[in-house]
Amino acid sequence: MDDLALMRQAVDQARAGLDEGGVPIGAVLVGGDGTVLGAGRNRRVQQGSVIRHGETDCLENAGRQPATVYRETTLYTTLSPCTMCAGTILLYKIPRVVVGENRTFEASEDWLRSHGVKVDVLDLAECVDLMDTFIARYPEIWNEDIGEVEGR
Amino acid sequence: MDDLALMRQAVDQARAGLDEGGVPIGAVLVGGDGTVLGAGRNRRVQQGSVIRHGETDCLENAGRQPATVYRETTLYTTLSPCTMCAGTILLYKIPRVVVGENRTFEASEDWLRSHGVKVDVLDLAECVDLMDTFIARYPEIWNEDIGEVEGR
Repeated sequence: MDDLALMRQAVDQARAGLDEGGVPIGAVLVGGDGTVLGAGRNRRVQQGSVIRHGETDCLENAGRQPATVYRETTLYTTLSPCTMCAGTILLYKIPRVVVGENRTFEASEDWLRSHGVKVDVLDLAECVDLMDTFIARYPEIWNEDIGEVEGR
Repeated sequence: MDDLALMRQAVDQARAGLDEGGVPIGAVLVGGDGTVLGAGRNRRVQQGSVIRHGETDCLENAGRQPATVYRETTLYTTLSPCTMCAGTILLYKIPRVVVGENRTFEASEDWLRSHGVKVDVLDLAECVDLMDTFIARYPEIWNEDIGEVEGR
């Protein structure tokens, strides 16, 4: 599958999150052979979680993998990774990240690239729209999710 | 309580992890008024988790907190944070981290300090001994935990 088709699966996760009243950020981890190893979405609201962002929930759902597997993967995420998720990408040496959009939030792309991670931004309006919808409804939850006291 | 007494609680978490067959790294989050907000330990083995390191498990157990609370906290951790845990510290703008030891592993202290986080290393032999014991028993799990293919 191509990047857009795989990002579609991440968007589906984000949309499911919005339907649950959660932060609409989704992610999919794809192995070197194109197999989807896991998918996930932000679970702050649904599970009261402070560490299950889209990317980390996806990795958790993919389960324990050998280092050699992570090093062949691509992580698709609907929103540009925060420092926690970027640090997780570096921990597991995931070599490529495909980002749905970075207009709403961007905190780690230079850092990832400086460590050799390939970061491709698709700039999809659908991903921006999901975040705009959520932030208009629940600005305080969005601020909590990115550790901010005030609005974006 | 002073730093050593609070680190003692993190070491107790690490020791409980070792007794469970887990990676012996523990953490405690302390609020600005000295209240312990949460404690946790690495749960890779116990829960099959790839995101519950000592620090992230501790934050998860502390639950959803307002940004204003995190900004007054100190995080005690028996081992120097990996990039995932350091990224989490930066996400929530935790201003101070007290580290039990950084001889076994160190990947983020300069990065944390460059973002204004105060990092104090206690260099406790007990923390080193816990890791030495675990790594001698299960080198492959330790490598998995830090995303490495080969031994340290």
